[in-house]
Amino acid sequence: MLLIHTLKNVNHYTLLHSLLPLFGAIRQAKNNAQTKVPAVDPAHFQPLGTWTSEKLHQSRAENPFMMTWVPGQARDNIPNMTHGEGVYLYDDEGNKYLDWTSQAVCANLGHSVPKSLVEAAAYQMTQLPFTYGGIGMTEVRTRMNQLMAEILPGNLRAAVFPSSGAEANEAGIMMARRFTGRQKIISWYRSYHGATAAAGAATGDFRRWYGSDNNPGFVKAFNPFPLFFNHGGNGATEEERVQSALNMLEEQILNEGPDNVASIMMESIVGAGGCLIMPTGYMQGIRAICDKYGILMHVDEVMVGFGRTGKLFGFQHYDGVMPDIVSAAKGISGAAIPLSMTACSEEIMTFFEDKPLGWGSTYQAHPVALATAYEAVKFLIQNDIVGHVQHLAPIFEANMQRLADQHPCIKQYRAIGLFGCFDVQDLTGAIPKLQHEPAHDAFHKYKQAYHEAGLVGLHRYPHVHCSPPLVITEDELLDGFDRLSTAITVLDDALGFHSPEKLSQ
Amino acid sequence: MLLIHTLKNVNHYTLLHSLLPLFGAIRQAKNNAQTKVPAVDPAHFQPLGTWTSEKLHQSRAENPFMMTWVPGQARDNIPNMTHGEGVYLYDDEGNKYLDWTSQAVCANLGHSVPKSLVEAAAYQMTQLPFTYGGIGMTEVRTRMNQLMAEILPGNLRAAVFPSSGAEANEAGIMMARRFTGRQKIISWYRSYHGATAAAGAATGDFRRWYGSDNNPGFVKAFNPFPLFFNHGGNGATEEERVQSALNMLEEQILNEGPDNVASIMMESIVGAGGCLIMPTGYMQGIRAICDKYGILMHVDEVMVGFGRTGKLFGFQHYDGVMPDIVSAAKGISGAAIPLSMTACSEEIMTFFEDKPLGWGSTYQAHPVALATAYEAVKFLIQNDIVGHVQHLAPIFEANMQRLADQHPCIKQYRAIGLFGCFDVQDLTGAIPKLQHEPAHDAFHKYKQAYHEAGLVGLHRYPHVHCSPPLVITEDELLDGFDRLSTAITVLDDALGFHSPEKLSQ
Repeated sequence: MLLIHTLKNVNHYTLLHSLLPLFGAIRQAKNNAQTKVPAVDPAHFQPLGTWTSEKLHQSRAENPFMMTWVPGQARDNIPNMTHGEGVYLYDDEGNKYLDWTSQAVCANLGHSVPKSLVEAAAYQMTQLPFTYGGIGMTEVRTRMNQLMAEILPGNLRAAVFPSSGAEANEAGIMMARRFTGRQKIISWYRSYHGATAAAGAATGDFRRWYGSDNNPGFVKAFNPFPLFFNHGGNGATEEERVQSALNMLEEQILNEGPDNVASIMMESIVGAGGCLIMPTGYMQGIRAICDKYGILMHVDEVMVGFGRTGKLFGFQHYDGVMPDIVSAAKGISGAAIPLSMTACSEEIMTFFEDKPLGWGSTYQAHPVALATAYEAVKFLIQNDIVGHVQHLAPIFEANMQRLADQHPCIKQYRAIGLFGCFDVQDLTGAIPKLQHEPAHDAFHKYKQAYHEAGLVGLHRYPHVHCSPPLVITEDELLDGFDRLSTAITVLDDALGFHSPEKLSQ
Repeated sequence: MLLIHTLKNVNHYTLLHSLLPLFGAIRQAKNNAQTKVPAVDPAHFQPLGTWTSEKLHQSRAENPFMMTWVPGQARDNIPNMTHGEGVYLYDDEGNKYLDWTSQAVCANLGHSVPKSLVEAAAYQMTQLPFTYGGIGMTEVRTRMNQLMAEILPGNLRAAVFPSSGAEANEAGIMMARRFTGRQKIISWYRSYHGATAAAGAATGDFRRWYGSDNNPGFVKAFNPFPLFFNHGGNGATEEERVQSALNMLEEQILNEGPDNVASIMMESIVGAGGCLIMPTGYMQGIRAICDKYGILMHVDEVMVGFGRTGKLFGFQHYDGVMPDIVSAAKGISGAAIPLSMTACSEEIMTFFEDKPLGWGSTYQAHPVALATAYEAVKFLIQNDIVGHVQHLAPIFEANMQRLADQHPCIKQYRAIGLFGCFDVQDLTGAIPKLQHEPAHDAFHKYKQAYHEAGLVGLHRYPHVHCSPPLVITEDELLDGFDRLSTAITVLDDALGFHSPEKLSQ
């Protein structure tokens, strides 16, 4: 039936053990000394920092690789960064960029990582680079765990330390389902939770469509920021709108079967979806619904956790709201090393005392990653970075307001701490595209202008994200807004606005 | 309908922008200077390495955390490791352990990480700790990518560098589905691919049951190592058994609809499932089935990639077999830092030139992780670690044979390179349990003896995994087998065997 390839140079032989009762259970491959590692470019043995731009360019041309959310060929259009300093990145063409979004809202300590992080990584890598968390305990895991218990509010504690935000959410979903014995996870359309299959299925934005959309047990709900209708109707008060949004959510839960719902999973302040800060009473209402139906409240702090919004965790902006599960990443290490965390209440922790979590990874509680992040968190504390964010927040907000006033293409903005987002509008007052639609031509002009103004950052047009490193100074912040304003002027023009239109309003 | 908690100390105010057409779109939270980071134990500011065993013990008692595949309370039963050297780990009670499984078959360079890795991590963390892969290119990413193209056989190239083996498999699954436009992934019952939802659904062992089992589009097949039946019937030749196993697989594919199958996903040599080396012709048959039906061959090299079996990649043991997708992790950095890789054929790479992969992560292509792993791979090459494994392989194999001969509780073994596995039997000649069943009491005695013999490693009873660091010397290897033999003698006794029984056979 099948063509089995003829084997040349078969390097195997079968050694049938005398006790072997099962087919093929014992085999040994004869090692073939001829099959060694292939020869490689000797230039690999030159130190990092020595390959010229030309060699790097040639190497990329000869060895294509993939991008993730953009086509592979986009790799040729992004700057080749050589080094960083403070809030700046430098490329191999001599350009200096102010990092206006802390890369993917994660390089919170800027690009001069405190020496304590470098030293901790080197110490741990020298002393005890790795133990598998299931068979060896480490000092740094114990200390990081204690530190998390101290800084997490209420009875929240770190449960596991995965390697990415997506994995932290996967662990949180597993936790919720196994603790409650229920399957459904309710999350928002305007949300992003990661790209692994469960985190991707919980995600509301278009990135879910690539391959996570058929994963069962995920239900999408509207948060208080729908695009095409108003909760409570036009003219409703905020209180009425919040109540209407909560009533809609509760009716949805009743239709899904409250006893089937494991958790409501949400970003405390929606990040990639555009800095959406929940209105007064909404999160308290979610908590009340959770309590009413025995549903867990899982707050995703991957983007805003560890100080971004002027509180250590975003949910702390919502008075009296204590989640059951918290996932975090990014800011936990200032992105200096891959690490994330899933925290939970004491009740959930106790539940898993006599049973496995059912999520795991080789790199869970990785000592080097923990050592680096431990120093990052201590740096936040010792230097009162949260206080610094609080100090800058009114200046940040005033400049968001200033640019919104000055630029007719800006429809509106949200800002909290050092986290802000403008929404771009077209001449009709409409937002020119949803995130998944092909970008408007004006966007490409804007992106070019942004680059020329000496900014680098993440773009999700029609959103303009503003999230500089938390260590930015006031002068750098003002300079950043000026650069951004220059770029947005190009966007005004490209969209056909003329500044007086708005200024005269 | 809902009780909205009364808000105390509301720290928000609503600023309605004059242009605001949508409910709640603009909000700003007033920063509250009173909510600072809580005070923490001043001992956190002592260097790593300074907390006493008592303090660490107390900290763990007061701050519980979760384990992953075992109950939380198991955290109290594992040694508190203080440092590593070569193939040894040391705990805070003065015990020295030979690492018999390279932790989770990943600390391939042992526990004295080469200085070049430490320096590369420190260099990258100082120079350019992080750029988000979508907006900034780095020298190390380009170089690592070229190096992978050089050492991967055929036209395979690295596509993305996620942070864990699970993520590498998620990316590979996404790749296969989007490239083929098909949904089904066929994988083996005896397999493990990770714990995120798609990797978990592809996993065949019991860990899939915790929460990934309802993820659609995953089909399980039998590889050539079923437990309770023989392919081709008793007494069939190996060739007949291979052909029968392949015929079964092809019939299954025909029943699933070949046009629905995106990939066949498999460990080249099954790892956690017990070092299962595919019999001659089987992998070539899989390749032929894939070619016949336009199915992609996805080989999971997470555990055996980068030299474990005496070849750089496990699939290189199967002559003429070239996969379409390769996932790897663990050995790529010797576990010194979290990093993984998904590689693919040129054809798949080209397909994604004008479209996004649809999988992504903040930490994809993390510069510090890449810099560390780049040095790990170069260390493998410069020190011909693969050659060293080939040199030790016959000694390893002879000692596997020796222990199988000496110990009546050992039913059979497999070995290749520095990767081996014993299967334990009971007095009836049956394997005493499947992996998911509660461990036999004899196992606990064995585990204790293993510990007392000065070994540390991963246990998956009734398998006894043997996979020491690839840098182990011959003397250390022989010493390791002697220690293991001591522990297995305890297992013989605990299971009721008396050595003469087997020796007389």
